[in-house]
Amino acid sequence: MIKPDSLEDETVNLENSLGRILSAEVKALIANPPNDVSSMDGYAINTSCKIGSNTLNVVDLAAAGTPATKKVTPETAIRIFTGAKLPEGANAVVIQEEVTQLEKNRIKINSKKNVQSNDNIRKKGSDFVKGTTIKPGILISPKEVMLFAAMGHKKLVVKRQPVISIISVGNELNLPGSLCKDNQIYASNAYGISALLKKFACKPVILTIARDNILSIKRRLILAYKSSDIIVTSGGASVGTYDLVKDSAKELGLKIYFEKVNVRPGKPVFAGHLNETPLIGLPGNPVSSYVCAQLFLLPLIMEMNGCSSNMPRTSRAQLDTALTPNGPRKHFMRASLRNNRGTKIVHPKIKQDSSQVRILQESDCLIVRPPHDPAKKKKSIVTIIELF
Amino acid sequence: MIKPDSLEDETVNLENSLGRILSAEVKALIANPPNDVSSMDGYAINTSCKIGSNTLNVVDLAAAGTPATKKVTPETAIRIFTGAKLPEGANAVVIQEEVTQLEKNRIKINSKKNVQSNDNIRKKGSDFVKGTTIKPGILISPKEVMLFAAMGHKKLVVKRQPVISIISVGNELNLPGSLCKDNQIYASNAYGISALLKKFACKPVILTIARDNILSIKRRLILAYKSSDIIVTSGGASVGTYDLVKDSAKELGLKIYFEKVNVRPGKPVFAGHLNETPLIGLPGNPVSSYVCAQLFLLPLIMEMNGCSSNMPRTSRAQLDTALTPNGPRKHFMRASLRNNRGTKIVHPKIKQDSSQVRILQESDCLIVRPPHDPAKKKKSIVTIIELF
Repeated sequence: MIKPDSLEDETVNLENSLGRILSAEVKALIANPPNDVSSMDGYAINTSCKIGSNTLNVVDLAAAGTPATKKVTPETAIRIFTGAKLPEGANAVVIQEEVTQLEKNRIKINSKKNVQSNDNIRKKGSDFVKGTTIKPGILISPKEVMLFAAMGHKKLVVKRQPVISIISVGNELNLPGSLCKDNQIYASNAYGISALLKKFACKPVILTIARDNILSIKRRLILAYKSSDIIVTSGGASVGTYDLVKDSAKELGLKIYFEKVNVRPGKPVFAGHLNETPLIGLPGNPVSSYVCAQLFLLPLIMEMNGCSSNMPRTSRAQLDTALTPNGPRKHFMRASLRNNRGTKIVHPKIKQDSSQVRILQESDCLIVRPPHDPAKKKKSIVTIIELF
Repeated sequence: MIKPDSLEDETVNLENSLGRILSAEVKALIANPPNDVSSMDGYAINTSCKIGSNTLNVVDLAAAGTPATKKVTPETAIRIFTGAKLPEGANAVVIQEEVTQLEKNRIKINSKKNVQSNDNIRKKGSDFVKGTTIKPGILISPKEVMLFAAMGHKKLVVKRQPVISIISVGNELNLPGSLCKDNQIYASNAYGISALLKKFACKPVILTIARDNILSIKRRLILAYKSSDIIVTSGGASVGTYDLVKDSAKELGLKIYFEKVNVRPGKPVFAGHLNETPLIGLPGNPVSSYVCAQLFLLPLIMEMNGCSSNMPRTSRAQLDTALTPNGPRKHFMRASLRNNRGTKIVHPKIKQDSSQVRILQESDCLIVRPPHDPAKKKKSIVTIIELF
């Protein structure tokens, strides 16, 4: 269904690259530092300089971007500032605090035995050499933006942002901002998932709400598959004996890849493709839809991006309470995290119902429990997935 | 210098609120669930129904958004789907798997002793009641967007994004994308800091590079203070005996609040205000400037946003190697983090020079070491600050 690494490349300016997915390796155009440079303000000398008087004539000045034109000899020094290229003939920098100014251009090194070759010098390429490469497949962070700038790049090759259409289905749904009747709730899933997708370099599009009938759903699916890289539906998976989203999509040629997954929350989740466009059917309960977006939708997007990083990303934490045995479904429990002297402590929420949006908002992670996982004692180590 | 909570409010659409700072409390316009609703597909019954035969007439249907019009009596049941309002007279839902269909509208409950009052019912307001409030001062995440939608809000009051002008100073600096001469380096600080600020709801503006002379710096400072909420400079703090940025800003009326801070990296950092506009002077070394932006600039921005959350955010981790005693300056060591069975393990980078952009990019956090911190053994617990 999914063609790995199938999104095309595009070129963006460095300033617009934050949060995008790097798609071509970045090579350093220069070394950093570009030469041996001074790491301090002081005097460039040659450590073989005349022992005894330790007095030297200051013959030139070197600043960052303005190198000296003269050389350092055993009898001379050159005034030098942080970041300046080390003058020819010099092999160390004495910091200005260790020098006494004798007259205008004459200095005395206070204690020459403290000065060693290479003191206060940053070696050429000690940060990165010319041609150092950063591999593609990463979500670009501020630190990366800084590194790519330091490597000399104004433009970067990144993945095109996939367009993801989100269709909410349900007679009970009402738009935020309007007045809710007694039997209605506000559509929230599309907004939460849309915001989540923006964090992963996608272009989400929220379609108008579909009602619980095949015509209404089909209209939006047709609109979506003509203009999207992925279609996401939310709800409409279980209205009695009808699976309205699946039935509607099947009339349009849906090929199912998987359905009815043994997870909690999110059992009704399914995936397939509709005329080449991947479709993920999320459950209607807000928590189920958000959790399944993290578990099933984000990995799919990262696969299309050619990203090597495994998603969902798991780690480990220590339980602050005992857990009863798990049932037959893999359970992703909402939980909060804290740090106690370097130990990640995880606290499962008491309410685990999949309609609890407020509990989800207060949660930091999901505790992953395999089917029939035995009871866990307090302080057991469990696997967690951090919620974005 | 900084007026706490001084940024004005503005109203944005829910879809544009991700990453903004909430500035007015959000109140739920409805309860969630809005009524007692079914959490499963099944049959709404009254547990006082006739014992013995356990057969009931199905008299109506209730779906999410389409409530039943009839009542449940001890002789009747109503077909009900997930999310539907519990019909009048009902006090439990029997899931469809525990029911046998006798004829078209007649069912038998397989084992009535399993059915308890309130079974499979989500109580009105069990997620949140009408009027539940979310406090301002948070950076809005996808989960919050979902919650605010569920609470009924199409528009949110957020803080205006502060305009932050960034001025890089240095004769050695060249723009990324151009050809670097032997003694030049690429300006990277402004790009890294700009990207960092975007993650914190700011509008960074990168000005053209200022050269190491007072006229060049003053021109950009004048431009900046007329149009910015904060001015950030990078570099130009230590060209020999000159502090060109400070000298330039003083000619324009700079009032210094602090300077020469006992930290490593970042000793030359200073702060003041220039005709009411706060100015932060960052060092020119890339690592110093980025670290100081996190330590000094972000807390200032959060203060203007009226955010209660303490910045920089510290936590704790376990050292995977010994550390030698610290010198007289508070040291923020670049380090990487990993998780070993729930324990945060921190590994200090061997290279700690403040010119090492590549090391910074590979780092996850800073180890905070107080002045004269004694040597630390492997497995000691240390304070860390996560890098953004």
